[in-house]
Amino acid sequence: MVSDADQVAELLARLRAGTPLVQCITNAVVTGFTANVLLALGAAPAMVDNREEAPVFASVADGVLINLGTLDAEVAQTMRLTAEAAGAAGTPWVLDPVAVGGLPLRDRVGAELVPLRPSVIRGNASEVISLSGAEGGGRGVDSTASTEAAVDAAASLVGRTGGAVAVSGPVDRIVDGSGVRTIASGTPTMTMVTGVGCALGAIVAAFAPYAETPADAAFAATAVLTIAAELADEKADGPGSFAVQLLDALHRVGPADLARLRVG
Amino acid sequence: MVSDADQVAELLARLRAGTPLVQCITNAVVTGFTANVLLALGAAPAMVDNREEAPVFASVADGVLINLGTLDAEVAQTMRLTAEAAGAAGTPWVLDPVAVGGLPLRDRVGAELVPLRPSVIRGNASEVISLSGAEGGGRGVDSTASTEAAVDAAASLVGRTGGAVAVSGPVDRIVDGSGVRTIASGTPTMTMVTGVGCALGAIVAAFAPYAETPADAAFAATAVLTIAAELADEKADGPGSFAVQLLDALHRVGPADLARLRVG
Amino acid sequence: MVSDADQVAELLARLRAGTPLVQCITNAVVTGFTANVLLALGAAPAMVDNREEAPVFASVADGVLINLGTLDAEVAQTMRLTAEAAGAAGTPWVLDPVAVGGLPLRDRVGAELVPLRPSVIRGNASEVISLSGAEGGGRGVDSTASTEAAVDAAASLVGRTGGAVAVSGPVDRIVDGSGVRTIASGTPTMTMVTGVGCALGAIVAAFAPYAETPADAAFAATAVLTIAAELADEKADGPGSFAVQLLDALHRVGPADLARLRVG
Repeated sequence: MVSDADQVAELLARLRAGTPLVQCITNAVVTGFTANVLLALGAAPAMVDNREEAPVFASVADGVLINLGTLDAEVAQTMRLTAEAAGAAGTPWVLDPVAVGGLPLRDRVGAELVPLRPSVIRGNASEVISLSGAEGGGRGVDSTASTEAAVDAAASLVGRTGGAVAVSGPVDRIVDGSGVRTIASGTPTMTMVTGVGCALGAIVAAFAPYAETPADAAFAATAVLTIAAELADEKADGPGSFAVQLLDALHRVGPADLARLRVG
Repeated sequence: MVSDADQVAELLARLRAGTPLVQCITNAVVTGFTANVLLALGAAPAMVDNREEAPVFASVADGVLINLGTLDAEVAQTMRLTAEAAGAAGTPWVLDPVAVGGLPLRDRVGAELVPLRPSVIRGNASEVISLSGAEGGGRGVDSTASTEAAVDAAASLVGRTGGAVAVSGPVDRIVDGSGVRTIASGTPTMTMVTGVGCALGAIVAAFAPYAETPADAAFAATAVLTIAAELADEKADGPGSFAVQLLDALHRVGPADLARLRVG
Repeated sequence: MVSDADQVAELLARLRAGTPLVQCITNAVVTGFTANVLLALGAAPAMVDNREEAPVFASVADGVLINLGTLDAEVAQTMRLTAEAAGAAGTPWVLDPVAVGGLPLRDRVGAELVPLRPSVIRGNASEVISLSGAEGGGRGVDSTASTEAAVDAAASLVGRTGGAVAVSGPVDRIVDGSGVRTIASGTPTMTMVTGVGCALGAIVAAFAPYAETPADAAFAATAVLTIAAELADEKADGPGSFAVQLLDALHRVGPADLARLRVG
């Protein structure tokens, strides 16, 4: 079970040596940033998201991200077909239920994807609570609940998927059948740049082929991103330079940096 | 009537305290940058633009931006429905008629949206002239006319919407029933980065819930963006670093900075 | 025939004086970055890509880019109509066959566009080999072949289009009826930022109206981008800051910088 900095460093070294091909069906707001995050980390992004190609590609990709940020009926169908194809091929896939909770289309699509058993669900507390079917409710993509409040909802989702749930917030909680792991690293600046949460989903998909369990991938991804954010914050003067520094930090982050990881 | 730096600073403080939820149906080129501008400013972006969700969302948003930069027939219908929903809910909304003037689809969509009475129309001189139905003509998204030449067209649009028109250029002119206000702040670098004009539309939508009149929101937004651009220019070495510095400057711009505002 | 730094500098001066209007139908991942590259260089981007407007616009644009990065059936039809309109109007156009080689939709679209005779085809070795119909094969957008291995495939495509083919890699090779020109400038960081290759296609389209032959445009574009990348690398600390510095460098790159061009 991956739960400390040394284990994360080892997985990161394997990821960089392997250059995993990570397919992303993600939202229009963050495609460029997500691809750059994956490149900086050492992965190979493939933003293949059309209906004809996406399901085919899911069987050659090393990991798949499905992010509900911007949807329409056709994209929703592509997501379903791609999730099925990933499942059939044994490709690990991550579901990011962006802004689920009160908007009709994404609530429906989220509910359809959970039974297809995503390896990891990555969201904020409100999204995880809403996706689980429990009472909660968000405000767009902002979470109005603490990550602790979402642990029961996360455990309920784990019971249905057999995978892991990563609840993002000031304290991140990674939940699977073996329990809850927490990470307290990271900075508030992460919420001042669009797509940092979405990037975490992509990083989880990049770690998944190297991790023994989905929760291990989620733990390593959260550790690497939050430490890189701390490194970036030291050099940044605001949200614009933070985003730039975050990419630089993801590229250079190593074992010595990861040693500052604050686990729960 | 907001027409000086102190009044702008007060509105900015209220915006930051309120974290307005700003829904953007904008073009594919600038979605990420627009979201980052809103976050840096202190607003909460929601890029909800699909046909099923966008009209619903317009009634919970604090302000809405509809930007015609990239269109197709389905998006055009979503824009109409969302404008109607915003109007019905009393949510202020901003129309940015990107590149209207000579291209069939966007000319038609612009003509359909004006009667739905946008709170603010934000465009360059060519776009405003074309949207008003007067003779003019642009060249893609570049303006070939001065903002002064667009004042009559702007006044004509104000007569039809009851709102305000912000004409962007080296000298910005904000027009409503009470007259014309001008702002001469800003830098030429603003035209070397894609989406700076589009970002202004989003910032207007963020100010709208706090301003007494649509023109006040347009004035405050133009003041904040042009001053932030001047701050950014002092630290930038070219258009790439300017875009980064602009986000940092939008995050930190305060009363002392706004004092350099040059009004007409 | 443009084959040295002085000739490139002269073409660059003409481009900047002319501010060419470059229409891009490109992929959703890189639209913003591509527009910013064109602005930094001194061109005027127009990301007009809907079915109603794109073919019309191709007759007023100075150059057109068609990039297959993200596709669906409707976009594919728009690309065909736009390529035909560009051909009919005599507007030079560039085809970037992103990730052609093994994915059904883009292979089909690529095969349909070649007979419409693009002025320049710009791709990596795998893409060029696949597009030519020869045996090869890629891995998403990564090339698994050297540019030398693609020269025969490029020559075969030149025979069908009458234009030029630019094969991108550590050594770039520009092929047309007159032979093969090589450029060895550039840096590995170019592959760590999404959209740098796509940007090259846009830069070729910006040079095309000023060059005597398509291969001259491809040579000048490759020279300017690779030298700008070298300048950027000197100031960057990683892929995030490299992308920012690349835009700054494209804005300031001049004859003295181009003198370091390494030709084959």
